[in-house]
Amino acid sequence: MAVGNAFFPQMPEIAGLRMGTGMAGIKKPGRRDLVVMEIASGASVAGTFTRNAFCAAPVQVARRHLAATREQDKAPRYLLINTGNANAGTGEQGLRDALQSCETLAGLGNVSTDEVLPFSTGVIGEPLPMERLLAGLPGALETLDSQGWQAAAEGILTTDTRPKGAARTLEIDGQKVAIAGISKGSGMICPNMATMLGFVATDAAIEPQMLDRLLKDGVENSFNSITVDGDTSTNDACMLIATGQGARLDSESTLAAFGEALNEVLVELAQAIVRDGEGATKFVTLEVEQARSRQEAREVAFSVAHSPLVKTALYASDANWGRILAAVGRVRIEDLDVDGITIDLEEVRLVEAGGRAESYTEEAGSAVMAREDIRIRIALGRGTRSARIWTTDLSHDYISINADYRS
Amino acid sequence: MAVGNAFFPQMPEIAGLRMGTGMAGIKKPGRRDLVVMEIASGASVAGTFTRNAFCAAPVQVARRHLAATREQDKAPRYLLINTGNANAGTGEQGLRDALQSCETLAGLGNVSTDEVLPFSTGVIGEPLPMERLLAGLPGALETLDSQGWQAAAEGILTTDTRPKGAARTLEIDGQKVAIAGISKGSGMICPNMATMLGFVATDAAIEPQMLDRLLKDGVENSFNSITVDGDTSTNDACMLIATGQGARLDSESTLAAFGEALNEVLVELAQAIVRDGEGATKFVTLEVEQARSRQEAREVAFSVAHSPLVKTALYASDANWGRILAAVGRVRIEDLDVDGITIDLEEVRLVEAGGRAESYTEEAGSAVMAREDIRIRIALGRGTRSARIWTTDLSHDYISINADYRS
Repeated sequence: MAVGNAFFPQMPEIAGLRMGTGMAGIKKPGRRDLVVMEIASGASVAGTFTRNAFCAAPVQVARRHLAATREQDKAPRYLLINTGNANAGTGEQGLRDALQSCETLAGLGNVSTDEVLPFSTGVIGEPLPMERLLAGLPGALETLDSQGWQAAAEGILTTDTRPKGAARTLEIDGQKVAIAGISKGSGMICPNMATMLGFVATDAAIEPQMLDRLLKDGVENSFNSITVDGDTSTNDACMLIATGQGARLDSESTLAAFGEALNEVLVELAQAIVRDGEGATKFVTLEVEQARSRQEAREVAFSVAHSPLVKTALYASDANWGRILAAVGRVRIEDLDVDGITIDLEEVRLVEAGGRAESYTEEAGSAVMAREDIRIRIALGRGTRSARIWTTDLSHDYISINADYRS
Repeated sequence: MAVGNAFFPQMPEIAGLRMGTGMAGIKKPGRRDLVVMEIASGASVAGTFTRNAFCAAPVQVARRHLAATREQDKAPRYLLINTGNANAGTGEQGLRDALQSCETLAGLGNVSTDEVLPFSTGVIGEPLPMERLLAGLPGALETLDSQGWQAAAEGILTTDTRPKGAARTLEIDGQKVAIAGISKGSGMICPNMATMLGFVATDAAIEPQMLDRLLKDGVENSFNSITVDGDTSTNDACMLIATGQGARLDSESTLAAFGEALNEVLVELAQAIVRDGEGATKFVTLEVEQARSRQEAREVAFSVAHSPLVKTALYASDANWGRILAAVGRVRIEDLDVDGITIDLEEVRLVEAGGRAESYTEEAGSAVMAREDIRIRIALGRGTRSARIWTTDLSHDYISINADYRS
């Protein structure tokens, strides 16, 4: 299931970037499960990775290789992504496998091993089927194409039902700039520093340190502001590539313009993950305002977003506002005055003065809850900080997807 | 659904305590929904209540009345419990209703209003149907009986499928002491300082301050160590009554003996809530050891217990240990060395040295997961503190119970 209709957008070519895919039969035969992204030399690359302590072998290797290329004033030349197997919880063997896949691709592409970054997604705890994976690499390289976005977006999916892409082309100081990206994720979604997988590229020339900052800022309000089930993945990673073959962006104003467009792309990619959340039938925006700190606002938002009772009420289109109120109330906040809190479901006030709003009617609440796209606004009445996150409902399909087979 | 078979135990009479029930038609006609507990004068009573900021009107009134009786060196004479309506999120009207129900019962019982403590459980945000509730009180008083435990246990249920009781009779220094208690709860279960509802009584004579300490200590490792869905209720309350008509317990050794038996009763009552958790098909014990602090151990335990992916794997009897590992890893712990962590599923080692244990086989894991009663032990390898909590799986029935009708 997934919320609403979706189409894969028209994606611009990014000069200096080509993508290839292959079918290595890593989990199932006959589906794209191997993606190679080839970056021309001269690019800058930034990355952000999961904070799960049990981070997967490819995450450890990718982080190390990214740092190594930085130290040599270079950038990665290949990203290698497989789906069907996360190479997580695989110990020393997992690290050796991740490294060997980099070595093999480096040999085929005539670059050094640390210029290859590996990414994996899929089932946790199974050894990577190395023979099939390595055998698939030459084929993937043969398909390298600057128009390969959609095939790549399909090649990184796991339980996702749709490929996810977003793009912007804009003019900055009279120069054309293109940004394009893909993401994947559907379950085990509560990213911390990154999403399941996101790959965004631009043709602009941007210094690595500046690219780091742009990615960090952009991820905070996009991938780090979504949750499907509260489970932070072992494999989250988001990469931002600036191939440097287009406009050079180094002034505050050009970087600000770029950052704005980048954030739109990141938010679209993050929202696409929520809309395609496992079993999702609703797309829910949670806005928490008037908090004393952004952290406080986020805690309230995630408490509501993670409440199984709120999520099942959303699934049932039941305006059971008492469950929202209880989920707000269970956050430990010093001196919280419940009488100052208001909760609105779209244009309908649910809660004020510690209880049900006087103007509230069951009919008005139910009418809003029947929609597919729902905004809940919670004003804490104690400050000026806010946060916004996106989430899904919790449906029978979520249980089926995660209980009926090993994912 | 519920885990295993259950029978309501033989319960001892507690001298100085009688229970009566009525059918007030608060939510549905023809079921017990009103319970009165009458406490003879001369008792001590301790209580612990939810920390949800949106705590229900009856919780506010019960807390106030308990404090008021303490100040007058008295104890509550009546506990009034209704099910079907939580009187939560009901603002000023809710407080007036809770108070009025105390006043009416106080009039009928010829005590003062603050000697009556109200408790409510059921749907949040609907006004209490006062007329029906008050009309039901005389009938409930007529059934007062010291053998009324099972009727009372049935009268406080909401989505529960079974009445829950536990009891011990023991000899302390040659004197007989009886302890008996009932509890209710099935969904919105992640108590904080108390459970949905628990009422435990003894005939022993124990000073109020000592009773407070016994309850606080006992609740920490019982009701505060269970979770079904991570949702802390607005109405949690647990009361401990010492009628004082039996043995006087005031020495360290007699109180220790009593405390041990009390803890057993509290753990049984708390576990009964988990076994009857909404949609539960598994009863899961999570033991986290070798932590640097008890708080750290509890955070890891609750992270695993609240993971929808771990819970659906438990439902599926799928030994998907990668999901357990990911849920441990997402807890923010400074300097956590994943190589030092071991995870055991009953007698089967799942994880060691950062990945799957060498000795692990899918057959061994699946054999354990097929059981109804499962223990998961996580050793963090960094300290000496531990914690133990109990939880359930997440099944299709949980979704049906919470999405298919308003609870």
